[in-house]
Amino acid sequence: MSETFSYDTYLSPFTWRYGSDDMKRIWSLEYKRKLWRQIWVALAEAQRQVGLVTVEQVEDLRAHQNDINIARAHEFEKDLKHDLMAEVHTYAEQCKIGGGIIHLGATSMDIEDNADALRIRDALNIVINKLAELLNLLSDKIEIEAEHVCMAFTHLQPAEPTTIGYRLAFIAQDLLEDYKTIVRVRDNIRGKGIKGAVGTSASYSELLHDTELTPRELETLVMQAIDLPPFEIAHQTYPRRQDWDVLNALAGFAMTAYKFAFDLRLLQSPPFGEWGEPFGTKQIGSSAMPFKRNPINAENMNSLARYIAALPRVAWDNAAHSLLERTLDDSGNRRAVLPDAFLATDELLKRMKRLLEGLRVDEFGIQQNLEKYGIFAATERVLMEAGRNGRNRQELHEIIRKHSMTAWAAMREGKPNPLADLIANDERITAFVASAKIPELLRADDHIGDAPERARNMVKSIREIV
Amino acid sequence: MSETFSYDTYLSPFTWRYGSDDMKRIWSLEYKRKLWRQIWVALAEAQRQVGLVTVEQVEDLRAHQNDINIARAHEFEKDLKHDLMAEVHTYAEQCKIGGGIIHLGATSMDIEDNADALRIRDALNIVINKLAELLNLLSDKIEIEAEHVCMAFTHLQPAEPTTIGYRLAFIAQDLLEDYKTIVRVRDNIRGKGIKGAVGTSASYSELLHDTELTPRELETLVMQAIDLPPFEIAHQTYPRRQDWDVLNALAGFAMTAYKFAFDLRLLQSPPFGEWGEPFGTKQIGSSAMPFKRNPINAENMNSLARYIAALPRVAWDNAAHSLLERTLDDSGNRRAVLPDAFLATDELLKRMKRLLEGLRVDEFGIQQNLEKYGIFAATERVLMEAGRNGRNRQELHEIIRKHSMTAWAAMREGKPNPLADLIANDERITAFVASAKIPELLRADDHIGDAPERARNMVKSIREIV
Amino acid sequence: MSETFSYDTYLSPFTWRYGSDDMKRIWSLEYKRKLWRQIWVALAEAQRQVGLVTVEQVEDLRAHQNDINIARAHEFEKDLKHDLMAEVHTYAEQCKIGGGIIHLGATSMDIEDNADALRIRDALNIVINKLAELLNLLSDKIEIEAEHVCMAFTHLQPAEPTTIGYRLAFIAQDLLEDYKTIVRVRDNIRGKGIKGAVGTSASYSELLHDTELTPRELETLVMQAIDLPPFEIAHQTYPRRQDWDVLNALAGFAMTAYKFAFDLRLLQSPPFGEWGEPFGTKQIGSSAMPFKRNPINAENMNSLARYIAALPRVAWDNAAHSLLERTLDDSGNRRAVLPDAFLATDELLKRMKRLLEGLRVDEFGIQQNLEKYGIFAATERVLMEAGRNGRNRQELHEIIRKHSMTAWAAMREGKPNPLADLIANDERITAFVASAKIPELLRADDHIGDAPERARNMVKSIREIV
Amino acid sequence: MSETFSYDTYLSPFTWRYGSDDMKRIWSLEYKRKLWRQIWVALAEAQRQVGLVTVEQVEDLRAHQNDINIARAHEFEKDLKHDLMAEVHTYAEQCKIGGGIIHLGATSMDIEDNADALRIRDALNIVINKLAELLNLLSDKIEIEAEHVCMAFTHLQPAEPTTIGYRLAFIAQDLLEDYKTIVRVRDNIRGKGIKGAVGTSASYSELLHDTELTPRELETLVMQAIDLPPFEIAHQTYPRRQDWDVLNALAGFAMTAYKFAFDLRLLQSPPFGEWGEPFGTKQIGSSAMPFKRNPINAENMNSLARYIAALPRVAWDNAAHSLLERTLDDSGNRRAVLPDAFLATDELLKRMKRLLEGLRVDEFGIQQNLEKYGIFAATERVLMEAGRNGRNRQELHEIIRKHSMTAWAAMREGKPNPLADLIANDERITAFVASAKIPELLRADDHIGDAPERARNMVKSIREIV
Repeated sequence: MSETFSYDTYLSPFTWRYGSDDMKRIWSLEYKRKLWRQIWVALAEAQRQVGLVTVEQVEDLRAHQNDINIARAHEFEKDLKHDLMAEVHTYAEQCKIGGGIIHLGATSMDIEDNADALRIRDALNIVINKLAELLNLLSDKIEIEAEHVCMAFTHLQPAEPTTIGYRLAFIAQDLLEDYKTIVRVRDNIRGKGIKGAVGTSASYSELLHDTELTPRELETLVMQAIDLPPFEIAHQTYPRRQDWDVLNALAGFAMTAYKFAFDLRLLQSPPFGEWGEPFGTKQIGSSAMPFKRNPINAENMNSLARYIAALPRVAWDNAAHSLLERTLDDSGNRRAVLPDAFLATDELLKRMKRLLEGLRVDEFGIQQNLEKYGIFAATERVLMEAGRNGRNRQELHEIIRKHSMTAWAAMREGKPNPLADLIANDERITAFVASAKIPELLRADDHIGDAPERARNMVKSIREIV
Repeated sequence: MSETFSYDTYLSPFTWRYGSDDMKRIWSLEYKRKLWRQIWVALAEAQRQVGLVTVEQVEDLRAHQNDINIARAHEFEKDLKHDLMAEVHTYAEQCKIGGGIIHLGATSMDIEDNADALRIRDALNIVINKLAELLNLLSDKIEIEAEHVCMAFTHLQPAEPTTIGYRLAFIAQDLLEDYKTIVRVRDNIRGKGIKGAVGTSASYSELLHDTELTPRELETLVMQAIDLPPFEIAHQTYPRRQDWDVLNALAGFAMTAYKFAFDLRLLQSPPFGEWGEPFGTKQIGSSAMPFKRNPINAENMNSLARYIAALPRVAWDNAAHSLLERTLDDSGNRRAVLPDAFLATDELLKRMKRLLEGLRVDEFGIQQNLEKYGIFAATERVLMEAGRNGRNRQELHEIIRKHSMTAWAAMREGKPNPLADLIANDERITAFVASAKIPELLRADDHIGDAPERARNMVKSIREIV
Repeated sequence: MSETFSYDTYLSPFTWRYGSDDMKRIWSLEYKRKLWRQIWVALAEAQRQVGLVTVEQVEDLRAHQNDINIARAHEFEKDLKHDLMAEVHTYAEQCKIGGGIIHLGATSMDIEDNADALRIRDALNIVINKLAELLNLLSDKIEIEAEHVCMAFTHLQPAEPTTIGYRLAFIAQDLLEDYKTIVRVRDNIRGKGIKGAVGTSASYSELLHDTELTPRELETLVMQAIDLPPFEIAHQTYPRRQDWDVLNALAGFAMTAYKFAFDLRLLQSPPFGEWGEPFGTKQIGSSAMPFKRNPINAENMNSLARYIAALPRVAWDNAAHSLLERTLDDSGNRRAVLPDAFLATDELLKRMKRLLEGLRVDEFGIQQNLEKYGIFAATERVLMEAGRNGRNRQELHEIIRKHSMTAWAAMREGKPNPLADLIANDERITAFVASAKIPELLRADDHIGDAPERARNMVKSIREIV
Repeated sequence: MSETFSYDTYLSPFTWRYGSDDMKRIWSLEYKRKLWRQIWVALAEAQRQVGLVTVEQVEDLRAHQNDINIARAHEFEKDLKHDLMAEVHTYAEQCKIGGGIIHLGATSMDIEDNADALRIRDALNIVINKLAELLNLLSDKIEIEAEHVCMAFTHLQPAEPTTIGYRLAFIAQDLLEDYKTIVRVRDNIRGKGIKGAVGTSASYSELLHDTELTPRELETLVMQAIDLPPFEIAHQTYPRRQDWDVLNALAGFAMTAYKFAFDLRLLQSPPFGEWGEPFGTKQIGSSAMPFKRNPINAENMNSLARYIAALPRVAWDNAAHSLLERTLDDSGNRRAVLPDAFLATDELLKRMKRLLEGLRVDEFGIQQNLEKYGIFAATERVLMEAGRNGRNRQELHEIIRKHSMTAWAAMREGKPNPLADLIANDERITAFVASAKIPELLRADDHIGDAPERARNMVKSIREIV
């Protein structure tokens, strides 16, 4: 088996294109095996306390703890067809003194599964830090844009005004939920513990039967050494629902990021013309169309988020089919699904940061949309005012609806919006709202309720938590 | 549109076959509309406090609050093509005095979405109660079976012994996680609040501008009246990630239930012969094969759980595509996905309860498997004992592995298991373990470590929380 | 069990809101049981030919073939817990003479599964007819709009011009693929055949052993009577991959419909302002905002299509887990998944037809976008012309890219598009393209290549096939 | 950017662990870029025919066609942020004479998307060849095992006998369906063609306007040179539903492989004891339990198949969201999803072949199950015989059902199966079936109907098609 790989074979985009180096290192084989050895050392150290293993043996193991040699391990694996046992042989070969006691009493999963829990936690920590950064960035943006009025769109149709800050605060609220979820999942990460082949600790009971240590105490020693709480109950592996919780937490963030990116793609579309993603001065939009300014970061986020969304289901299947005391139908896909999900998430975090930092707000487009569509929204004020003066709400709604349809028809032919006139000249309306008051009522730009205040409240919540 | 439906048209299995009456009522149109009217009354009552609405009007609304008339509403809907406005018209027609002020200042989603949050919470409460019942039932079972030794299987291959109680405790641990998750989701259910068309409260600001009430205070009054906390930020609807959280919580339980049911199907298979599901004395297993005792409850659980597993993705899509201040591409599928998920869950709960209550444990099958396969497992004791006496672990593992392969080959031809003899006569082993001790070591039935203790600990955790 | 259901319990939206009556009838319990009885009659008739059953018995069965009595069947089912056996008892009770021989030699799935194949085929036929109608409608539209120039958008950014007909032809091409797929799936629908409990025909061999009929001949007689080819090999059921093929075929159409609907939602957004969905004169867009014209049909299509997309996975799971000679974990979810998928598809077909029939094309919006953005696209002509005159393509691309960025910046501030001037005054360009020719080159509206011709070719292909 | 990667960073399991070298090469960046250059050469060659490009330029391009230099391309990409344009620059730099005309008239997707179609087709060809091999292997096996009787299991409960050949023929039938589907998809693979930025061929119309070539003729020349038919209609890319068809075809095979592997896992479970997967003589089953013989190949197949099953949905999303003339939200995930699906499929093919070649059939286990459970199945013969003699089927079914329940209860306590006696001594039965005949009827081992014949028919169909 080759030890280096290049572009003449398949390289996953998560190897060379997406994700940070830190995140990739966590999902490297080398790091995994360092964690394995760390656990073997911790196990030996615990066993030393009751004399099952000598100080010299532990020292020998510790001395070679980081001498990962994957090429050698792959040689062993060819015969053994068991990657962890191949690593035991590789490690043992390096440790003349301690080699024989590596893995004493253990089952593969006492090592592998705890290591997996550790690297999932490491990976979650990266995500959490970057999310915190994102939330702070977003908070700054919200504060700046809290009162910046723009049209809101429902059904992709102009609705009423809102503020950019409020719109971002919606994203921030979801993002804060993601943050809290991922922190909770991180805090709840547990290892299988040191429980042997089927989780009963039977082999350790045997091993320790005339020592002063119970299997549970041995487990506590080892798990404290690696700083990982164990599940109370485990079969051969930790309960696979933990993977599902982890992937769901990432898929939740992917969902938030997806909406943000899609909104940006719409708002960057020139007919909308309100937002823009930062663009390198030499960046090529299209090889055929030199004028293109494509929202490629936002599009990429949608693309990767969609992939992440497909992955929790694989974990669900793994957990649901982990029959009796475990089956191995989880193993193959976990090698791809876990790292891919984290690396795709990592890329989303990077791109979302880039977009937030460089987000372009196009004042002209914003004002133009407000001018064109705001007056429709402002009819709600007339509706409210007349309602307060006793006008039947349902009837008035119908009157304004008809005038609006006339107005839209005019605008679709390029004519100016006639709505203000239609309203000001309708006696069924002016009987309840003074004509003179109508122009003032039809100004949309301060029809934003308490959006700024609520946006700022969201920032406060974020600053308290993150 | 017809008002009653029978078997000559399509009836969902969740209408007539699966789920409890209580759960179905929550997902009825009638209940939904009662909730709508409850919110309209609460809104009017709040508006009355600042004189926008009279006492008489509120009283009129309250008097007709439960007079749901769906046939009439459907007549209105034919023209309006808007189900909530059709209900406004229906209700208004019933309320001669208060009809005109229904929905004052509100957008449809101020009513509909808060009502949806309420019924999701009602539905979660049903799930939580039944889960608690299940956990208690399971706890009782675990206590009874804590020390009941049986073979554990990994890879569907005999591994080492465990106890039935420990196996059930694994399910219980996952189930407790489901319980905690669902309770957390329930406690976190929030409504959209009373925030108007795009969530800015602009219409309410207008309506209340010369009263003593702020929009936020109005929101508080209404939401307290219906006992539902609002999101701080919402656009036209509550953030759709809430639906995803809800469906994921249900899918988590479905995952636990799936594994339990599949395990039972395996253990009920006569070659395993250890467990059985309760069976009615008149129940027909197969129309062709009168001898069949099929695990139809467990199979049904697997079937419905698999459907539930497909649904969170729909909610992810809804949330991720809820563009700008909302789009309506959530609405159609939510009418099916939310009730179906709850009703399928409800059915899983019922069937899992039935299975736990009537679970048959077949002592003969359990003993037979222990006798056949236990001795393999017990070799681990020899491995441990020799390890403690200085034998190289890796070499000994290999020796036992080879004897085991010989033993399996013999058994596959129907011969008795020769493993005990092979071990007792191998000097490479007896040099480290006294021959005399070997028979004792090869008894599997107390090789269960601390499984019983851990199983009981799990029960303790459950009893504390539930 | 109740026999009628109303709005005080859960009614699926596919019962009362979505899908045609014809499609619902196919998925009714009544229709299913009529098919069962049809198969029992066909089986008895075949058995009569070799004297196992008398003419009178067959006649008796035939006389009661359509006397479905679900209430009575449900009474039987309460004890038997087996819906098909309950129907046998119901039917037998009605047939004093032939009752005893119903289901002779058969296993439930000989009846149920063939009936399921029949109703799937019936349902596919409805879909095929409606798809054909849709394709014809679309073809007419394409012909009308084949030369109607409009801006094309890639990345939601203006790209080059295209024609409305060409854009619709893209949808038509996918739709034709759907049509061909669904027809192929329909033509390939097979039943389980008449093969007994595990598909070996053993019971029929037994039954027929001293008659002139082989089990295969019996199968042929029955299957010809119900006009359904059987699989050569089946276990207890027909291979469940057939369901997956069916659901995938529907999901393919849902994918096409989804894109069409989403495009329409974008183009109906007033900032785009090019297309519109038909709108009833009394239709209410929003209860709060009387001016709204929301694309609710297109949004609903996206919503239901997304649900359909989640369902093939359930069928994959059913097929993949149909262990050994079958397990029952398919049954529960198939009761929901198959009808829901067909009824949602049926609704998509109806709405897509409505949208195509009433599609509004807004000339003003189309022209406005062409005027604003067409000039960018037309730079490609300059690029081509200069390329033909020897200008280095990569360098020129870069020059135009920079001018375009300047132009976008101007437009974002509301200034007129300066691109034409920038190009006409750049010597690096005019050295290769005569200044005088530039204005002509920069006209976008006939820069549409062979789009009209290709659009019409697509219509030709459709008219040949459908 | 690094050019080689090793185990200290993330390497996908599809880089180093799963899939064949041939398949990996197809999904390498190097191969992709060779295809790009092949298309650029074909395009230049076609343009040469009308004098847009000189012979020397084409020759220059051809001379450097295979000089892929990814390191250099990545340098360009850093600025350009566009991978195809980076390759144009790299290639142009190598071609002093022809460099300037590379990509003339083309849009990126004229190159990239046709290349993608080519490598998908290459990859499908690998799959097809291996599937054919598998089908032949399976056919041989079926012929050998056509009459080999074993118990069939429905609901994981013993049902009636079948033959191993018939069971394998079921798999073969599905596999043949997969084969036909994948061949059809392969034969239907089309490229985008040479249609420019939005599919209208406008740039080519421009370029060719005073030549003798139409854009369609240019397209034909290029596409014939690369031997790939084009879609009649395309926007910027080929319709993304093609990816969905491809992934579904793979997911179909994954479904078949999943069922086969799961069946094998069950049958290899010692309580079943009928089949076994080949096992290396040095292979370690478990690091803790030296006696384990785990079905790791079958488990791995289930694991990877489950991953494949999650991927078509990503392609559905890509196609459904390919808005207007295309959006880029497909690009990122396609880099992972397409190769991963093919490489996982490739691994399934390899493992399934290994399992079929080395499949162990354990005669002892098969006979033991037949002896234990066959008699139950054989009651169907009594049912048939009595039915033929006029016994009421429903009543007799009930009598045998009750005896069977008694028999199961006895067996669950380890007693011999009393069913034969119960039946032979029941006058309600012996009145219709001669006592003497009963023992003969209760022999299960030839109660297999026409299973062998049908199994052989399936082989015939395979041999005709493959």
